[in-house]
Amino acid sequence: MPVRDPVFDPPFNVVRASHVELGVRDLKRSRAFYVDCLGLLVGDESDDALYLRGVEERNHHSIVLRRSREADVRALGFKLASEADLDRAASWFARRNLPTSFPDVPYQGRTLRTADVFGTPLDLYARMEQAPSMLQKYAAYRGARIQRIDHLNCFTPDVQGAYDFYAELGFRLTEYSETDGADPKLWAVWLQRKGNVHDLAFTNGSGPRLHHVGVWTASVLDIIHICDVMATSGYLANMERGPGRHGISNAFFLYVRDPDGHRIELFTSDYLTVDPDHAPIRWSLTDPQRQTLWGHPAPASWFEQGSLFTGVAPRLPTLAAQPIVAH
Amino acid sequence: MPVRDPVFDPPFNVVRASHVELGVRDLKRSRAFYVDCLGLLVGDESDDALYLRGVEERNHHSIVLRRSREADVRALGFKLASEADLDRAASWFARRNLPTSFPDVPYQGRTLRTADVFGTPLDLYARMEQAPSMLQKYAAYRGARIQRIDHLNCFTPDVQGAYDFYAELGFRLTEYSETDGADPKLWAVWLQRKGNVHDLAFTNGSGPRLHHVGVWTASVLDIIHICDVMATSGYLANMERGPGRHGISNAFFLYVRDPDGHRIELFTSDYLTVDPDHAPIRWSLTDPQRQTLWGHPAPASWFEQGSLFTGVAPRLPTLAAQPIVAH
Amino acid sequence: MPVRDPVFDPPFNVVRASHVELGVRDLKRSRAFYVDCLGLLVGDESDDALYLRGVEERNHHSIVLRRSREADVRALGFKLASEADLDRAASWFARRNLPTSFPDVPYQGRTLRTADVFGTPLDLYARMEQAPSMLQKYAAYRGARIQRIDHLNCFTPDVQGAYDFYAELGFRLTEYSETDGADPKLWAVWLQRKGNVHDLAFTNGSGPRLHHVGVWTASVLDIIHICDVMATSGYLANMERGPGRHGISNAFFLYVRDPDGHRIELFTSDYLTVDPDHAPIRWSLTDPQRQTLWGHPAPASWFEQGSLFTGVAPRLPTLAAQPIVAH
Amino acid sequence: MPVRDPVFDPPFNVVRASHVELGVRDLKRSRAFYVDCLGLLVGDESDDALYLRGVEERNHHSIVLRRSREADVRALGFKLASEADLDRAASWFARRNLPTSFPDVPYQGRTLRTADVFGTPLDLYARMEQAPSMLQKYAAYRGARIQRIDHLNCFTPDVQGAYDFYAELGFRLTEYSETDGADPKLWAVWLQRKGNVHDLAFTNGSGPRLHHVGVWTASVLDIIHICDVMATSGYLANMERGPGRHGISNAFFLYVRDPDGHRIELFTSDYLTVDPDHAPIRWSLTDPQRQTLWGHPAPASWFEQGSLFTGVAPRLPTLAAQPIVAH
Repeated sequence: MPVRDPVFDPPFNVVRASHVELGVRDLKRSRAFYVDCLGLLVGDESDDALYLRGVEERNHHSIVLRRSREADVRALGFKLASEADLDRAASWFARRNLPTSFPDVPYQGRTLRTADVFGTPLDLYARMEQAPSMLQKYAAYRGARIQRIDHLNCFTPDVQGAYDFYAELGFRLTEYSETDGADPKLWAVWLQRKGNVHDLAFTNGSGPRLHHVGVWTASVLDIIHICDVMATSGYLANMERGPGRHGISNAFFLYVRDPDGHRIELFTSDYLTVDPDHAPIRWSLTDPQRQTLWGHPAPASWFEQGSLFTGVAPRLPTLAAQPIVAH
Repeated sequence: MPVRDPVFDPPFNVVRASHVELGVRDLKRSRAFYVDCLGLLVGDESDDALYLRGVEERNHHSIVLRRSREADVRALGFKLASEADLDRAASWFARRNLPTSFPDVPYQGRTLRTADVFGTPLDLYARMEQAPSMLQKYAAYRGARIQRIDHLNCFTPDVQGAYDFYAELGFRLTEYSETDGADPKLWAVWLQRKGNVHDLAFTNGSGPRLHHVGVWTASVLDIIHICDVMATSGYLANMERGPGRHGISNAFFLYVRDPDGHRIELFTSDYLTVDPDHAPIRWSLTDPQRQTLWGHPAPASWFEQGSLFTGVAPRLPTLAAQPIVAH
Repeated sequence: MPVRDPVFDPPFNVVRASHVELGVRDLKRSRAFYVDCLGLLVGDESDDALYLRGVEERNHHSIVLRRSREADVRALGFKLASEADLDRAASWFARRNLPTSFPDVPYQGRTLRTADVFGTPLDLYARMEQAPSMLQKYAAYRGARIQRIDHLNCFTPDVQGAYDFYAELGFRLTEYSETDGADPKLWAVWLQRKGNVHDLAFTNGSGPRLHHVGVWTASVLDIIHICDVMATSGYLANMERGPGRHGISNAFFLYVRDPDGHRIELFTSDYLTVDPDHAPIRWSLTDPQRQTLWGHPAPASWFEQGSLFTGVAPRLPTLAAQPIVAH
Repeated sequence: MPVRDPVFDPPFNVVRASHVELGVRDLKRSRAFYVDCLGLLVGDESDDALYLRGVEERNHHSIVLRRSREADVRALGFKLASEADLDRAASWFARRNLPTSFPDVPYQGRTLRTADVFGTPLDLYARMEQAPSMLQKYAAYRGARIQRIDHLNCFTPDVQGAYDFYAELGFRLTEYSETDGADPKLWAVWLQRKGNVHDLAFTNGSGPRLHHVGVWTASVLDIIHICDVMATSGYLANMERGPGRHGISNAFFLYVRDPDGHRIELFTSDYLTVDPDHAPIRWSLTDPQRQTLWGHPAPASWFEQGSLFTGVAPRLPTLAAQPIVAH
């Protein structure tokens, strides 16, 4: 009897990582960073929140900035295929004694607020208010010309546990790193639903914490340009790592920190992963090119710092931290 | 009671358009065009055939050139999710009295050879021999640095009929053009399975005929470069249309003709369409920007010429041809 | 006895084409085009004039828009090496009975207003008020990210005569087209002082008239982007020709028309011409690739239309117009 | 009485930095690096030498690799405007008791072999065998698509002395760094003849030694691509610094080391400097953005290592080395 494949027959259908809500301490300062510098479009704004999206996005928001006393992360948002999937999701989480509620969320349809086994807050929903695509309103392009949200990347204290949890939900492995030796341990995993390298990734570290939100640009030159802009308009210190080329995912990347320290990855040039026989790529932790194909070391902050989820205390990781080896 | 949605619950799961087999009259001449000029990678070759793929592709082939007395098209290839899907497909086509056979096809697993209601030959399969990804073998990049096959575009005598047939198989509409007036008629449709604008498109015209094979590049500059290469290495007459920007799909495009007249579109910069509430875009046939955002007319050949499928006589279209209006 | 080489020993030292003053009928409308759309920087503006420059320019202005009842051209501006060169220039023009005066010109030092033998108004000067370079103020980059003025291109009724006049002033030939046959006639010439393909070019046609002002961008993608912007923000009809690649000069180009019909070429990727033994390139008028390497025809307007110089009646050309052959 | 300005009235007219001759220990290994990887064109080759040039160059060679027991530098090559300039140069150097000889140099016309006051070997000539421009032979573009040599950069023990020597020859200052305080000392100078930021640059350090040869590419993406190529084809260790953006010169850069350790800079996007009133830019040594606008530190090797000139012992610098401060 064939085993159920959760990729094609999941308990509920997750379409993609769709948004994130970040707590920020000074909305005006954050607006200067995300809108005036990075060039994201404003869908709506109030005294308490700023709703942002990229030029091709029709979902009302992909990054929500919420005025907050702490620089925390409120929720990771995933779009489901239908309202029926949302009901199936609510049952699934309830059966596992994970929290479930349906708070009113502005601009979204029915939204299930729940959490994974590590306490990571998740907002699942099927319908969001639709905004006009600005893809062909080229005169509105600014800054890095960000097209859309691409993925969410988290520290987790237990990569194997995180992988098991999300694989059961139909997330599919595309690349992974693991320790060498006779009993290899997963160190980091890249998991996808929408057909490119990832919607969600996990790296070994004190967690759960958000490592970064990945946003996609059409051209490498959009990323080079935003380097030039940030370096000459007061955001030099916000440039944390890159530009560079990851071995893993083949992404051309730049990591920047927002005024509250939340990390954003500007990213392009990964690849299609929809084929069921697409085999995941294994990277040894001792291969320096997994991090940067070009050999640049990442700063310690990139390995160590992340954003806390509201009210969730991180746990120390199962695996001891690896020495950071510049190569 | 909810209606079955074939996008999420199709009779069998088509993953994507994956390859095409083209009959060519002089393999050496075709090799010069596809390999030496366009830069596609050779997976295998014999006296009778040349198996080509793009730099990120792991499927053994996405374009097969077969030595032939006629410049015809042997089959459009689609990848299914599993062998079980292949069995479901065989039953589905047989129930509709469409031809079904399982010929041996080199480098592919079990392959169902069938046809749609217009006689378009289709090869459906689930597993293909895997080749190494060359995505990070940058020294092997040549010509247009083509990354992968993207889509197949056909003339059909009955766009509504083609739409109905493929929608039933779970292909989803992303953009369409139709005649204006009280009783609009579909003129062209873009249909997807893999999550971008299209795997398969149909335009009103004498058919079935293949209009073009679309291949994807990472950068607009790859397309500009291949224009420069073709124009200065004996392929000027093979440049049919572009470079330009389509209104439909937002694609940056170049159409070229191979030595047998088969049309290839080099293409980049469309967008993600995986959201179930992603509404299709309607274009009026009288909107000149649907063809080229920048206002360049296409040559008559582009509207009129296509490749015949082996042994399939095309029929005249239901709708009268529209006057080609330069704008 | 060696002949004096005017390139290295000119009667006075012209450094480069530096600016142009265009008469426009509606400054607000022109500002929307040049500043909001193309992205040029505003140095100064008044009710009567708008002073524009590119991001790397330190000269106060390279394009001056002057409120005018007619869409005319006031003067072509050239920078000389020194005040002594300016005195030598005044004597040189006076000796040839060409007009000379020294009007006050805002933001410029001493300025010689004169004309060539066809009546083309010329402003020669050595010093202009310097503005801050914005090259590393990347946050100020807009539109096509124009870096600097590159060249001025004119219709002339007598290409041989224009060539002789400017060659005597030390302008050096880099490329030219001529009629075929036993007695070839110059059809167009590209002349340089600053070391790339041209500061000044002349084409056979009713003249003197300004054909276009060429401005330089760093990347082909800047030009592709402005195509997308213009096509989707009300300037589609202002896109006259391109984007494309000239055979002559190897330029990647786009020709646009401002609201008064003045033609601007956005341009990049020519080459260095400083070597004294750099031989000029000859193009036959019957070689279609001289116009566009990629084979696109130019519209009739591009061959026929130009801007009048204030108060200067154009003369019919010596050579009969060539048939415009699409290729 | 006006002082002679050597920029416009030099003792002899240097057109530009035109070539360099490098001693290499294994021509085959060097060929793999320069031709197969970087993509330079081969003009001629023998058992003893390889003559290379970029795609737009008509001079027969811009980089000459000479089989050698030592990885040394034979000469820096500068093009003069005429044979008369060459005679004036010979007299000028002889009057200063600097060595002068006219050896036969393959593919070059009469060549003056001399040296500056530090012993840096210089080859001055006016005419070189011309090769066909490959600028519009796009099918021949490979690797980084290098267009031309741009500049030569040297360590000198006495920056003020080097500046004085070359300024007297008409080299013009465009940018410089100096120590802070009441009695600032020149630390590094960028000097030009051909109209962009430099033909020749000097930095304080044990010298004379060649720091690097700068070659120019048309696009930032050419440099990103060669990073990807080198990192994945066995040349990772040859990537020394970058890609990045210099504050000084605004160059987008990548520094690579050839198999003998000679340093090559791939470089694009500086600016025009022909205006006589173009003021040089001063950088404080304490401004970290002079080195990299984006804040990346350079490795110690970049500050310390250089290529020796054949038979010339370097001297220690006048100014004490500055601490290398990562920023």
